Amino acid sequence: MITTQEITTRRYLSVRQQSEKLCAPLEIEDFVAQPLVDVSPPRWHLAHTTWFFENFLLTPYGKNYKPFHPEYHFLFNSYYVQAGERWQRAERGYLTRPTVKEIFAYRKYVDEHMVEFLEHSNKKYELANVLELGLQHEQQHQELLLYDIKYILGHNPLFPIYVPRKESENSAPPRNWYHVTSGNYSIGHSGEGFHFDNEEGDHTVFLHDFEIADSVVTKGEYLEFIEAGGYEDAVLWLDEGAKWVAENEIKSPMYWMRDDQGWMEYTLNGLQPINFNDPITHVSFYEADAFARWKGLRLPTEQEWEVASKQICPTQPYNCNFVESEYHRPVQTGGNDFWGNVWEWTSSPYRPYPFYKAAPGAIGEYNGKFMVNQMVLRGGSFGTSKDHIRLTYRNFFHPHLRWMFSGIRLARHI
Amino acid sequence: MITTQEITTRRYLSVRQQSEKLCAPLEIEDFVAQPLVDVSPPRWHLAHTTWFFENFLLTPYGKNYKPFHPEYHFLFNSYYVQAGERWQRAERGYLTRPTVKEIFAYRKYVDEHMVEFLEHSNKKYELANVLELGLQHEQQHQELLLYDIKYILGHNPLFPIYVPRKESENSAPPRNWYHVTSGNYSIGHSGEGFHFDNEEGDHTVFLHDFEIADSVVTKGEYLEFIEAGGYEDAVLWLDEGAKWVAENEIKSPMYWMRDDQGWMEYTLNGLQPINFNDPITHVSFYEADAFARWKGLRLPTEQEWEVASKQICPTQPYNCNFVESEYHRPVQTGGNDFWGNVWEWTSSPYRPYPFYKAAPGAIGEYNGKFMVNQMVLRGGSFGTSKDHIRLTYRNFFHPHLRWMFSGIRLARHI
Amino acid sequence: MITTQEITTRRYLSVRQQSEKLCAPLEIEDFVAQPLVDVSPPRWHLAHTTWFFENFLLTPYGKNYKPFHPEYHFLFNSYYVQAGERWQRAERGYLTRPTVKEIFAYRKYVDEHMVEFLEHSNKKYELANVLELGLQHEQQHQELLLYDIKYILGHNPLFPIYVPRKESENSAPPRNWYHVTSGNYSIGHSGEGFHFDNEEGDHTVFLHDFEIADSVVTKGEYLEFIEAGGYEDAVLWLDEGAKWVAENEIKSPMYWMRDDQGWMEYTLNGLQPINFNDPITHVSFYEADAFARWKGLRLPTEQEWEVASKQICPTQPYNCNFVESEYHRPVQTGGNDFWGNVWEWTSSPYRPYPFYKAAPGAIGEYNGKFMVNQMVLRGGSFGTSKDHIRLTYRNFFHPHLRWMFSGIRLARHI
Amino acid sequence: MITTQEITTRRYLSVRQQSEKLCAPLEIEDFVAQPLVDVSPPRWHLAHTTWFFENFLLTPYGKNYKPFHPEYHFLFNSYYVQAGERWQRAERGYLTRPTVKEIFAYRKYVDEHMVEFLEHSNKKYELANVLELGLQHEQQHQELLLYDIKYILGHNPLFPIYVPRKESENSAPPRNWYHVTSGNYSIGHSGEGFHFDNEEGDHTVFLHDFEIADSVVTKGEYLEFIEAGGYEDAVLWLDEGAKWVAENEIKSPMYWMRDDQGWMEYTLNGLQPINFNDPITHVSFYEADAFARWKGLRLPTEQEWEVASKQICPTQPYNCNFVESEYHRPVQTGGNDFWGNVWEWTSSPYRPYPFYKAAPGAIGEYNGKFMVNQMVLRGGSFGTSKDHIRLTYRNFFHPHLRWMFSGIRLARHI
Repeated sequence: MITTQEITTRRYLSVRQQSEKLCAPLEIEDFVAQPLVDVSPPRWHLAHTTWFFENFLLTPYGKNYKPFHPEYHFLFNSYYVQAGERWQRAERGYLTRPTVKEIFAYRKYVDEHMVEFLEHSNKKYELANVLELGLQHEQQHQELLLYDIKYILGHNPLFPIYVPRKESENSAPPRNWYHVTSGNYSIGHSGEGFHFDNEEGDHTVFLHDFEIADSVVTKGEYLEFIEAGGYEDAVLWLDEGAKWVAENEIKSPMYWMRDDQGWMEYTLNGLQPINFNDPITHVSFYEADAFARWKGLRLPTEQEWEVASKQICPTQPYNCNFVESEYHRPVQTGGNDFWGNVWEWTSSPYRPYPFYKAAPGAIGEYNGKFMVNQMVLRGGSFGTSKDHIRLTYRNFFHPHLRWMFSGIRLARHI
Repeated sequence: MITTQEITTRRYLSVRQQSEKLCAPLEIEDFVAQPLVDVSPPRWHLAHTTWFFENFLLTPYGKNYKPFHPEYHFLFNSYYVQAGERWQRAERGYLTRPTVKEIFAYRKYVDEHMVEFLEHSNKKYELANVLELGLQHEQQHQELLLYDIKYILGHNPLFPIYVPRKESENSAPPRNWYHVTSGNYSIGHSGEGFHFDNEEGDHTVFLHDFEIADSVVTKGEYLEFIEAGGYEDAVLWLDEGAKWVAENEIKSPMYWMRDDQGWMEYTLNGLQPINFNDPITHVSFYEADAFARWKGLRLPTEQEWEVASKQICPTQPYNCNFVESEYHRPVQTGGNDFWGNVWEWTSSPYRPYPFYKAAPGAIGEYNGKFMVNQMVLRGGSFGTSKDHIRLTYRNFFHPHLRWMFSGIRLARHI
Repeated sequence: MITTQEITTRRYLSVRQQSEKLCAPLEIEDFVAQPLVDVSPPRWHLAHTTWFFENFLLTPYGKNYKPFHPEYHFLFNSYYVQAGERWQRAERGYLTRPTVKEIFAYRKYVDEHMVEFLEHSNKKYELANVLELGLQHEQQHQELLLYDIKYILGHNPLFPIYVPRKESENSAPPRNWYHVTSGNYSIGHSGEGFHFDNEEGDHTVFLHDFEIADSVVTKGEYLEFIEAGGYEDAVLWLDEGAKWVAENEIKSPMYWMRDDQGWMEYTLNGLQPINFNDPITHVSFYEADAFARWKGLRLPTEQEWEVASKQICPTQPYNCNFVESEYHRPVQTGGNDFWGNVWEWTSSPYRPYPFYKAAPGAIGEYNGKFMVNQMVLRGGSFGTSKDHIRLTYRNFFHPHLRWMFSGIRLARHI
Repeated sequence: MITTQEITTRRYLSVRQQSEKLCAPLEIEDFVAQPLVDVSPPRWHLAHTTWFFENFLLTPYGKNYKPFHPEYHFLFNSYYVQAGERWQRAERGYLTRPTVKEIFAYRKYVDEHMVEFLEHSNKKYELANVLELGLQHEQQHQELLLYDIKYILGHNPLFPIYVPRKESENSAPPRNWYHVTSGNYSIGHSGEGFHFDNEEGDHTVFLHDFEIADSVVTKGEYLEFIEAGGYEDAVLWLDEGAKWVAENEIKSPMYWMRDDQGWMEYTLNGLQPINFNDPITHVSFYEADAFARWKGLRLPTEQEWEVASKQICPTQPYNCNFVESEYHRPVQTGGNDFWGNVWEWTSSPYRPYPFYKAAPGAIGEYNGKFMVNQMVLRGGSFGTSKDHIRLTYRNFFHPHLRWMFSGIRLARHI
């Protein structure tokens, strides 16, 4: 018989191993670079997720726990003001020490103490939520790791291959529109399971009638927008979007390039001809919004998205394209794809729910302090772990960003 | 008997004259400077508002109308992409010609043609809405004029007086909390009168129970926040707010300074000792948000604000402190002050209402393209014309801005 | 009989009046703008030159002198660290007060006290050098005034005329090469007359044989460089020059533009077709240097320039094109033009002469602290006063600047 | 008997091995980072120096030579416009591939072909100068490697040790002043041996009498400047130097820091207490110039330096502190130290000698295009190879830089 404690330990080790598995194809050099301020070097992700367990569990609650190294607290705290001073984010790529080997040793040390802690600490039940937060936190960083690895390799003129290509279905299903009737709906997380504080607070919203597409926009549909001069027509764009396009000379999604043989795209499988039936990804909110306007449609609000996805697929379908499927790109899966594949931009700014309350202490900085100037994305991506995502999960990014696995679902009023 | 046409002409001339009246205390030099990218030189406001009538009425619809000057279209278009190329906003202060005198001649020329147009054009009825938009547009610029004049004079070490001080009531009323019961409410403009497209689309929202303060925060209350170290405590701030404070070394509202005699403040009446019973103004959203958090409270959403103000003062009280009262600063008016005094930051990002549709053509750029990364403010200020404001009026600014007459009203869940 | 004192007073008043004369064609608005960090608003020049007399003569030595206004010291000090705090240079265009009228009153007040001082002070002889420095300083600012007025008017799409055009000779003389024999030469100012500290210290240099052109490069010669693709050929440029060209998209001298009728140029006489026989002006050191390289030639060193000009025109020829000729542009004058017309870039960085010693106190900051990263120009321009220039005069600007009246003379080794 | 060809091959291999020897103490991660735009990642140095031989010898002249990889030409060209497009310098730290292992394979491949070439090519004699340029170029990069390794390790809060400390003499000799008599002197390189084009052109200069110190400034002398408030006294600084100090909050040489135990310094031997008898290093020209002014002295010109050093030590003394001594820091060597230890800032801007002519083709870009806005340094440092330096060697850096091994020698007129 497996005990709860054994299950917990297994889950802990399994999540931790996944981070290392994702890094297995990398060369040592790949762990160091930070070619964009939003990218963190892989070595930093591996150390920071480890620091999270050390800082929020072992150091305060571990019996006689001695931190692995006195400077790691300074080096690997990300943004927790209440946890103390930290190395500047923009300068993570300037550091070459501790080495990757030392960071793996750090992980091993913390893992051994964590296993010990999970077996013997009399605090383990009251701290279960912090433990789970640490694991969910590491799963978030696993997805960031994939964004960052793709950015590091995909901005190198040698276009290195991260993993070989695994073939997928190559046709796009017809688009259907799903109708949601006006009325009061319940939004947000209720009940027992783990969730972030930003989802909390079951509350009511009124929605007017709307329709939502049952599939996401494909690369082919997006190409039509490009070919119709979408990037050059300022009228389609939010004012700040038009400025972003002009200043950065944006002409296509990130990683697209055109050579003699036509449109190519850097993927985690190396440089590839674009498959236009696959879902579009690596678009900013500005691009998603302009595309929708060009179609005479709009993006859904996050409430519309949540209500519709709950009606269409009330339980999470496990055949979705999450990180476990190891496609490492968006693919056609044959069915509806509210889940997995690409994070879908909504038209909703990221703001607190009505009854939002940040947790006390440094953990309260996890979500709340970012609730301005960002937009909500929903549904998870091919980089998300399937036991990490939830129906009420709120992801968020600044509207100009697109190094993450973002995509577009359309909606309309009727 | 006064005809409708006479009323229209009178209103046209009256609005136009108000712009010139606001500039009367200025020296010629004051019309030229642009000490902040968000500030426009007063000469530009006077010309741009005139261009609006020329470009959207006289040029397309005026009989044989000849534009005053061929280059003014380029010089005085603000941001209307569909109206053609324009001079860069950040470089408005680099221009010294046309002179103020020439701009007044431009105004006179356009006014004469507009009066003629209003009397004789057979288009005057179908264009009534564009005319009214032009007048409302000019009233918006009149308020911007006051922000910009204050910024220009208030950042000059000589601290020139714009107008002499007019005395006001000097005590703050006790704060009461007004309760709104949960339920579905109607939001947005319905019915006939003029309104901007961003208010349009009467729609339903569900609100949970909440309470809202019947008076705005005073300078004295805000001083307590300063003295309690509010600016130094990063935990009170949104992450981007904390960065804004640090980078700009913000330690108090704009225009506050401390000398040997204590706290002083630049006002349109020159440098003055601060009256701590008056409403706080010149705070950014970041400051309003941090102040509310420090109080254990929050800002209202724009929907909460609209519902509460509709219940508390269903008709606009004309004793409010609008620009016509000529205080040119926030004062205590003895009653509730949902209207006038200071624009009140809400916790709502500026986004389209459910049924929002931009008008066709350049006029459609008026509001819609700014619906990202800004926050809604409600209620008008001491710089607003009383026939310009409405219950459903949505003003909007970026969260870091504070050269406008912004202030704070608090709310709470119960 | 005119006394020395009368001569001094006359000269003082004459220099002071010249500043006001140069400003006579301006509108009030033109006195305010600062469209480039290197440009100062004309109102600032008028006040700063006045402050110089107030600060270095009247305040320390005037009998019971009371400064005109307590804040002007802060507002109108330029860069004299030892004279105290000052308003930021980059923000001079943000100020609209004191008004132009008030600044003229300030000038009048200081002039009256200066005349009194020149008549009655018993210090007038020992301070003669400071007085003369103040006058030379004002003459330098008169030239800067012309640069800045041209920049302000010439970057306005209305291209206002400063003064009407005065016709000039329209053919370029043939180019002759003047030979200087190798040997030791004396450089720098010796003897009695006024000179800046940076010219001081008669010293010896050895020069190898060289030849120098007896006329400056014309616009026509420079056009050949443009048409030969000079701006696109990185090989012709210093590395920092090539970057400057690329970043600023430089394709021609400042103020040149091409329309349907061919090459046009903004001049102080308004927009004009380019006269290709006139000397080239408004080129940076990078452009002068690349042009010379393209010709297979080089710029002279400042020592070569000084020795050659001393041999060719040992006394200053008074028919040169200085500000008094009122062409307000470079013209062909028929003879050699070492003097006037355009400041000629030399290949010499601006560094101290062997025996250089800065004067004690704030006046010592006049020249010495700028002796890095700038290049020497020689000879004066059409904006220079003829009694301001000297054979040993060293002007200096950063190599990327070209809003001043700069030009090119070529040299070669033999 | 050893043939000339064997000597050449030995020298080639010896220089090449030195680069790899300098990198031996590094971890793979250290090869990747670029924490300052002036720093290049060590992996880049190793590849770029290899590309130099490939691009300028093997590709054009090697028999059937096939470049190692088609993209390396783009990746590892530094600034040779005439050699084609190249990866942006500021983004060298963004690249993680080719890996260090692949770069070592690249080196091996090129070395094998070079040895073959040196043995068999019938071009080897006529290309001897390009070969030597490639070796001297690699030696320059070896020194840069040390600057960059120190910067990468020294800006890491773990302060890793590059090599263990080797003890040295710990007392400073008394300072003597050496007199040089006025007269004409010959400057620049003449005769056979290898030299850069910027040294070429034996020419005459006249020098006035001067005295020059026979030892460089020590850390102790520099500390007095700090303690006397040198950094805070703007009067001591060039204007651009004072701005550099203010903007960068400079308070001491690079790598100095103060903790509870007093002044510490990062060295290539790790964090160490400062030995105040050792020569000062890591100062900018601005600091060297301000220090000299504070002492009432000045820096020598590069001509003074060359003449004096030729008189004092006409042949290069081999007991100097060059890279072969493996101190990896400046030390006291007991004798005069014109050579080695620290590069000595001169007061001379880096400009062409009178008869300077760039070589044709891309190699002509080696020196000439950098001759603006930089200052000359003389004498070599503890990071220089002893067979790389020459009496006439002109090094150059921008005046604000100080990550290189720069120092101060004083001079004075008499």
